[in-house]
Amino acid sequence: MNILVTLNSNYITPLKVMLKSLFFNNWRERFSIYIMQSSLTDRELQQIEDIVINQGHEFHVISIKDEYFKDAPVVMHYSKEMYYRLLAFKFMPPKIDKLLYLDPDILIINGIRELYNTDLTGYLYAAAYHHRGSINKINKIRLKPYDIEAYYNSGVLLFNLNQQRNTIDEKDIFDFVRENADTLILPDQDILNALYSKSIKPVDEILYNYDPRYYNYYKIISNGKYDMNYIIYNTSIIHFCGKQKPWKKNYSGKFHSLYKHYERIALEQS
Amino acid sequence: MNILVTLNSNYITPLKVMLKSLFFNNWRERFSIYIMQSSLTDRELQQIEDIVINQGHEFHVISIKDEYFKDAPVVMHYSKEMYYRLLAFKFMPPKIDKLLYLDPDILIINGIRELYNTDLTGYLYAAAYHHRGSINKINKIRLKPYDIEAYYNSGVLLFNLNQQRNTIDEKDIFDFVRENADTLILPDQDILNALYSKSIKPVDEILYNYDPRYYNYYKIISNGKYDMNYIIYNTSIIHFCGKQKPWKKNYSGKFHSLYKHYERIALEQS
Repeated sequence: MNILVTLNSNYITPLKVMLKSLFFNNWRERFSIYIMQSSLTDRELQQIEDIVINQGHEFHVISIKDEYFKDAPVVMHYSKEMYYRLLAFKFMPPKIDKLLYLDPDILIINGIRELYNTDLTGYLYAAAYHHRGSINKINKIRLKPYDIEAYYNSGVLLFNLNQQRNTIDEKDIFDFVRENADTLILPDQDILNALYSKSIKPVDEILYNYDPRYYNYYKIISNGKYDMNYIIYNTSIIHFCGKQKPWKKNYSGKFHSLYKHYERIALEQS
Repeated sequence: MNILVTLNSNYITPLKVMLKSLFFNNWRERFSIYIMQSSLTDRELQQIEDIVINQGHEFHVISIKDEYFKDAPVVMHYSKEMYYRLLAFKFMPPKIDKLLYLDPDILIINGIRELYNTDLTGYLYAAAYHHRGSINKINKIRLKPYDIEAYYNSGVLLFNLNQQRNTIDEKDIFDFVRENADTLILPDQDILNALYSKSIKPVDEILYNYDPRYYNYYKIISNGKYDMNYIIYNTSIIHFCGKQKPWKKNYSGKFHSLYKHYERIALEQS
């Protein structure tokens, strides 16, 4: 399976944890890890490479030079890294057709083979949207001119690279950003939804983009089905969305102990 | 390291989880697992033996015949299994001097070598007592005639078998139970404390008998030191004391997700 991550130095430790959890719960699989970056030191890259190689997987660094995005517009305090996942298709080897992008604030707690095997014929992406009424509604209103059907979360994105190579034009993306610079909140996610929402195949958020802040909400709306037992045995991807992160000191949440467990084994084995 | 467990069929799954966590977090160690029992089926014993042997450890069954405890007094609804851990020294091979008893409602989340290496010269046991004022105070009053210094928890007990062989007389235990049948609440723990409290070497409860019901209490009295980070990186033994158990449907607690994680990997590999 081909996995893409894009990150800067602030997320090195979470990335190690994410990779550790990925390998631990998918030990029958072989992975090719692609890392798109422009700011990591050789030492930081080496640390990640060691973890990947020691577990028997492939490691590829795609270093993005400043000049590549010199004409791209910037939004507020966001760096040009916000374009990486959307334009990754331009930098990936042509032989690769499928790629799973994963945010580093993620824990993989079960197999991801079924997600990866999702048939993407006719779609650019597969992703989950968070069902909670308010999130979806607010963002649909905010991006109204673009008539989106659902507001997808961009933290877990399965790519149909051939389709992207044939249809996505970076000029559209840069134009969109220039026109909407004042209203963008999460620029990459907003771009994805405004421009490509209709070409995204929805996947189950409980299985592939579970937001642990809403543990009680999910449990109640499912009449108790999505309880701890269900999540631990069925969910593949927990995504620690929002400002509170499980590696930070004052975090509190249902999956805190599980996250810290993976952090400990990731750091002790690196 | 020699490990003792005593159980009946209701605790087969928790035992598998406990053993899985023990092996996972002590992978450099070799264990001899002794299981004292009288009611398990051959199939149940085989399941546990498979887990132990497949991980490269030794497995020994000590089956207790009914007639052995025929003269022992019984208390309320407790079976004679309540005597097993206290009289285990009579059934263990003479070559063995040290033995760690572990309850099945336990998760081992770090190494236990330091606990096992505790110097027991002059002591019968090592154990932790729970520091929470009320628990200690109530039980000291309850067992007042026996002038106990602290009320130790019997779920994690390190045995000095030679010392026990030389000093513990089962008649003392049976007499104590006859005399106190109406006031015993947790019979084996009460016996341990009333008769042997002064010969127990205390060990740190945060490291070796952490009660997750009191997460917030421990954190507050330590001025924040015993937070999630500390527990995950330092605690060796979490003991799910009390009636609410993490394998039950309506359990809720800080270490629920971690427990269920170990349960999943224990059951999938068995």
